[in-house]
Amino acid sequence: MAGSFYGTIFRISTWGESHGKGVGVTIDGCPSGIALSEEDIQIDLDKRKPGRSPFSTPRQEDDKVEILSGVFEGKTTGTPISLIVFNNNQRSYDYSEISKLYRPGHSDYTYDEKYGFRDYRGGGRSSGRETTARVAAGAIARKILSQLGIKVTAYTASIGPVFIDKSKFDEQEIWNNFLSMPDSSAVKPAEEYLTKLKEEGNSSGGSIECVISGMPTGVGEPAFEKLDANLAKAMMSIGAVKAIEIGSGMEVASKTGLTNNDFYCINEDGNVSKETNFAGGIVGGISDGSDIFLKVYVKPTPSIHATQRTVTKQGEAVEINVEGRHDPIIVPRAVIVVEAMAALTVVDMLLLNMCTKMEHVLKVYQK
Amino acid sequence: MAGSFYGTIFRISTWGESHGKGVGVTIDGCPSGIALSEEDIQIDLDKRKPGRSPFSTPRQEDDKVEILSGVFEGKTTGTPISLIVFNNNQRSYDYSEISKLYRPGHSDYTYDEKYGFRDYRGGGRSSGRETTARVAAGAIARKILSQLGIKVTAYTASIGPVFIDKSKFDEQEIWNNFLSMPDSSAVKPAEEYLTKLKEEGNSSGGSIECVISGMPTGVGEPAFEKLDANLAKAMMSIGAVKAIEIGSGMEVASKTGLTNNDFYCINEDGNVSKETNFAGGIVGGISDGSDIFLKVYVKPTPSIHATQRTVTKQGEAVEINVEGRHDPIIVPRAVIVVEAMAALTVVDMLLLNMCTKMEHVLKVYQK
Amino acid sequence: MAGSFYGTIFRISTWGESHGKGVGVTIDGCPSGIALSEEDIQIDLDKRKPGRSPFSTPRQEDDKVEILSGVFEGKTTGTPISLIVFNNNQRSYDYSEISKLYRPGHSDYTYDEKYGFRDYRGGGRSSGRETTARVAAGAIARKILSQLGIKVTAYTASIGPVFIDKSKFDEQEIWNNFLSMPDSSAVKPAEEYLTKLKEEGNSSGGSIECVISGMPTGVGEPAFEKLDANLAKAMMSIGAVKAIEIGSGMEVASKTGLTNNDFYCINEDGNVSKETNFAGGIVGGISDGSDIFLKVYVKPTPSIHATQRTVTKQGEAVEINVEGRHDPIIVPRAVIVVEAMAALTVVDMLLLNMCTKMEHVLKVYQK
Amino acid sequence: MAGSFYGTIFRISTWGESHGKGVGVTIDGCPSGIALSEEDIQIDLDKRKPGRSPFSTPRQEDDKVEILSGVFEGKTTGTPISLIVFNNNQRSYDYSEISKLYRPGHSDYTYDEKYGFRDYRGGGRSSGRETTARVAAGAIARKILSQLGIKVTAYTASIGPVFIDKSKFDEQEIWNNFLSMPDSSAVKPAEEYLTKLKEEGNSSGGSIECVISGMPTGVGEPAFEKLDANLAKAMMSIGAVKAIEIGSGMEVASKTGLTNNDFYCINEDGNVSKETNFAGGIVGGISDGSDIFLKVYVKPTPSIHATQRTVTKQGEAVEINVEGRHDPIIVPRAVIVVEAMAALTVVDMLLLNMCTKMEHVLKVYQK
Repeated sequence: MAGSFYGTIFRISTWGESHGKGVGVTIDGCPSGIALSEEDIQIDLDKRKPGRSPFSTPRQEDDKVEILSGVFEGKTTGTPISLIVFNNNQRSYDYSEISKLYRPGHSDYTYDEKYGFRDYRGGGRSSGRETTARVAAGAIARKILSQLGIKVTAYTASIGPVFIDKSKFDEQEIWNNFLSMPDSSAVKPAEEYLTKLKEEGNSSGGSIECVISGMPTGVGEPAFEKLDANLAKAMMSIGAVKAIEIGSGMEVASKTGLTNNDFYCINEDGNVSKETNFAGGIVGGISDGSDIFLKVYVKPTPSIHATQRTVTKQGEAVEINVEGRHDPIIVPRAVIVVEAMAALTVVDMLLLNMCTKMEHVLKVYQK
Repeated sequence: MAGSFYGTIFRISTWGESHGKGVGVTIDGCPSGIALSEEDIQIDLDKRKPGRSPFSTPRQEDDKVEILSGVFEGKTTGTPISLIVFNNNQRSYDYSEISKLYRPGHSDYTYDEKYGFRDYRGGGRSSGRETTARVAAGAIARKILSQLGIKVTAYTASIGPVFIDKSKFDEQEIWNNFLSMPDSSAVKPAEEYLTKLKEEGNSSGGSIECVISGMPTGVGEPAFEKLDANLAKAMMSIGAVKAIEIGSGMEVASKTGLTNNDFYCINEDGNVSKETNFAGGIVGGISDGSDIFLKVYVKPTPSIHATQRTVTKQGEAVEINVEGRHDPIIVPRAVIVVEAMAALTVVDMLLLNMCTKMEHVLKVYQK
Repeated sequence: MAGSFYGTIFRISTWGESHGKGVGVTIDGCPSGIALSEEDIQIDLDKRKPGRSPFSTPRQEDDKVEILSGVFEGKTTGTPISLIVFNNNQRSYDYSEISKLYRPGHSDYTYDEKYGFRDYRGGGRSSGRETTARVAAGAIARKILSQLGIKVTAYTASIGPVFIDKSKFDEQEIWNNFLSMPDSSAVKPAEEYLTKLKEEGNSSGGSIECVISGMPTGVGEPAFEKLDANLAKAMMSIGAVKAIEIGSGMEVASKTGLTNNDFYCINEDGNVSKETNFAGGIVGGISDGSDIFLKVYVKPTPSIHATQRTVTKQGEAVEINVEGRHDPIIVPRAVIVVEAMAALTVVDMLLLNMCTKMEHVLKVYQK
Repeated sequence: MAGSFYGTIFRISTWGESHGKGVGVTIDGCPSGIALSEEDIQIDLDKRKPGRSPFSTPRQEDDKVEILSGVFEGKTTGTPISLIVFNNNQRSYDYSEISKLYRPGHSDYTYDEKYGFRDYRGGGRSSGRETTARVAAGAIARKILSQLGIKVTAYTASIGPVFIDKSKFDEQEIWNNFLSMPDSSAVKPAEEYLTKLKEEGNSSGGSIECVISGMPTGVGEPAFEKLDANLAKAMMSIGAVKAIEIGSGMEVASKTGLTNNDFYCINEDGNVSKETNFAGGIVGGISDGSDIFLKVYVKPTPSIHATQRTVTKQGEAVEINVEGRHDPIIVPRAVIVVEAMAALTVVDMLLLNMCTKMEHVLKVYQK
């Protein structure tokens, strides 16, 4: 089956390697009649683009997206939308060393074991470049969400030891600094930390938070296709993510029923609401209308210049210093990827949920 | 689509409510030729059974599994295996109050919003009883894993403030105590903590760790179907789980590349190995042959006797004390569910992975 | 994957062997709020039941369906509906001969080759009894269709050389005679033909037509998931079906564009209509609002008493006379199976189609 | 879900319109280690190309395929293979009339009803050009089949009233004549028939047969995923196909058990074989090792110059003469599409079947 297809109704299939001709994605199942232009997608792609900051790889990829199909007279037709981003500005690079050994923290060894060999140029399919296609597709998902009043907002929550101060949260700030932090006061210490690590040929981990606001109630399927289960998969499918929390997350383990249950109340509009939102907007796998809150933990860039021990394909122990220019932090560029995966997942489950009630079926088909 | 189907090759479909006629599961895609008896399944079901401890509901469900199809002369035939566990000993209970309001922490509200109404008896489909079917199917998955030398072991890692001491880890202990703790010295303080909470009509959260040992290398698909992504979904699909970690999990956010990368080495057998296992046995979504390590965080039982605020279906604010006998802790009974979901996920990805290399295809079809 | 799961949104999973404990089906994805009783399902099951005629097996199976889950207070809850039909009245029978050789026209050989061994009692999973589960699920699909004004009607079109006269078509007649023929004048010659074959220990093929009326326009997906493609799969998945036609079917090969194109016109109600319906209600894989017309061709019962040549598992050439009482014709009992598969397919595609237009998405989610 | 994804393990996703930027396909799940070049694919694409004969559209599309990803150092890597064929030589054409009315036999009306509007240029997604992507993907499937000794051969069996004489069957002849007929003596009468129709502004239907030889036994899943069921879907998903037969096909309706059952025997090599092959190589949905034989019936090209009645989008009755140059016959260009769909289906089911026996699982994973 391989793994490059995602979604049940709003389905995408991605392709492309870091150093091949390009990367792309086909979206099948996008509803017809949605206004869509290349600019809509480019906005998100530009947030993922390297070269935004001194802490991202200085390769100047243009990452210009092209719509190859599925849009006619400015609107989606309901048929497959094919998007492509050609790779350009590939610098010639000597991969002869990398081709022969396994870089720690990279997929070199596991790919070789799985497939028998690997495209060793720039990580091939396991490269972060694969996420370009996710972001492009996510931008279309976001167009649907915006028509339904749903908004997905992710941001850097921490970089190494530097955490944002939530009391200083400013959404406008997120895309104003290189680190995608919503708290401008955290940016400088984070930059200093990264600069020091970069000088040492080292790298840092960090965390990203994501809020989905405006969710209708009742979205998500029971048992295996819970909304949070699908969000967890979506997040953990992003290369460097190693942990995911929904709502209070890990803290629930040390809480009690009394301190963890969200009490229901009637809000000012006379609607059912909750006094708190420890559940993170999802109960029993189904949205309760509150903000969905999730957090992911991202590992440090595995490509570092410092000396590491490893082995060659022939089983010889060697030392390695990974050459090339690498981001000392993955987090800021992963923020838009988190948004994309959240948007893709929520759209798919919103569409699936349309078939839940006979009342809805009649609403669509009654003449 | 609803959500009660799971898996791509080794596929299961579960059904049944807490207070209906029973619960069951159909497994389609189980390879033929595997020895299977009802006893094989009963062993795991008995680990989930209520009544094992003073901290689980005293309902004396027998939970006897019956194989209805798919096994002939003691072996799986390759066709669907249908398992059923009849509900018995259902105590008559007055659901009239529960039917009219939304219990905090339960899915009453979200089910009503999604479906228009709900089976309010004992939580209906959102009841923990739904996991009986998962455990039954997981027992069959485990039979396959054992033939491949793969073992799945989960255990209680913490209950409220009480953590196991890893240096005292004793696998034999896990099913010897009511709390499924592998460290007998942690059992008593945990029991005391739970007894106190129970007296207060309160409940506790906790955490579960799971180790999958004996994994072949190369299992898991890149991009969206990463092995860790599917494990994350599997775990988060268990009702009360709110966070999941793989390997170092959340800690990666504060680590550096140098302290988080696992260096490769050659082990005593001359095979590629790793000096450390911060990755938790999965790199780039693909198993690296080390133990897979994951941890989940489980919320406190939402059913508590203490007074809570909520609203009725008619939008009236009320107070509620949830009646009935409830476990003050979900964790010990969820341990076998974690094992089951891990086993189901790993078996499915092992089968999918068989098609990865042309070399494997030829191996199966060459005469 | 095995093959006992069907559908994408309205999904079913079937199980059970001819001589096991029973057969059953779980339906996941049935919309909530539909009135459903065991009687609704029993009506269709009774049409499949053996013993309706002298030409069907005299085994007196009761085929009483039981709803095990998914219905509460007489309405579907949106969660899995599990149906079971226990096998009773299994006559003891000596399978020792059948277990050792391959019956011509049966799946004995292919099952052995696929699985390594087989449940040889009564054909195991390849038995026609497997269709019981399809009919039960189909009855629920039909409940949905009826609310949308869609009706599925199948009937015997021919038995051996005896064809119905379409000018004498009487829908009321279909379930009034043993052969499910809508033309009572064809019944007698067909019976005579079958009686003669039965005496010779032989059997007959035949054909079934199916009309789906009341279809909305616009249902079906382009490319691979065309409505007719899915209907073709549905029909060919019925054991004995060897050919399927949509609309003019095979005749199109000898027609010209001028004689095969359906001209559009405006009907009395002012709506777009067609002068003819050679297309059988589907153009480009999508329903055009006309009646959908399909026809399937069913092979003769392979179980015959006449002497046949075959081989044993050990590769010895032998002669065989298949013992037991067998229907000399499959067709009349397959009529309701054709209806069930058509209903299941159409419901699934109707639900999928709800997500096609952004206009529909807004209709469901707008407050 | 839309319909442009196909397959479970060997999965493809196609995109592209007749008059957009191009058409393409992504193949995910292709095993690693298969030698693959653009030439391998071009060979099949050239068989579909218009301009091969006076009876196909004279548009000189180059249809040059480009591999964008998934191949490294001449071998498949196991990751997604993206193929693109750019559209060039699009002649400017006035679509203003076509955009306003519904062409008989085309999907104009059904697309408008489904999606609310349509890309009216050249049929958009419902164009035969969509099959380019199928043929490209099919060429890769064929590479796998050839390594397993499986061969797929389709050919024109009839054009209008002209049938091939099977006694003159010459496989070499198929791609030597414009009509893809394996009997050179049928070519001339067929050409005369087509020339006459073309002069009248009319078109012809026809039929295609397909043989899959070298199939292993045991491939195909019981119940809904029968090999013949999936082949039926694959064939009916080709735009103009209106009927499909397996083996004796429609004839089974008039046969008896004695004349339709294939008797088993032992062949010269001492293996189980059959005296006849009325079943067309599939029994109970599973391959029996004999040649798989299927036949499809193709409708006449709906685009004809002769005057037809239709209606406009505004509901006005009008007459239409479809302008432009159109093939008077679809069949010869559809032959390679039939091969492609057969190859794609068989490869997917071969890969699925690898997981059937525990014996196979052990074979792949044992060290």
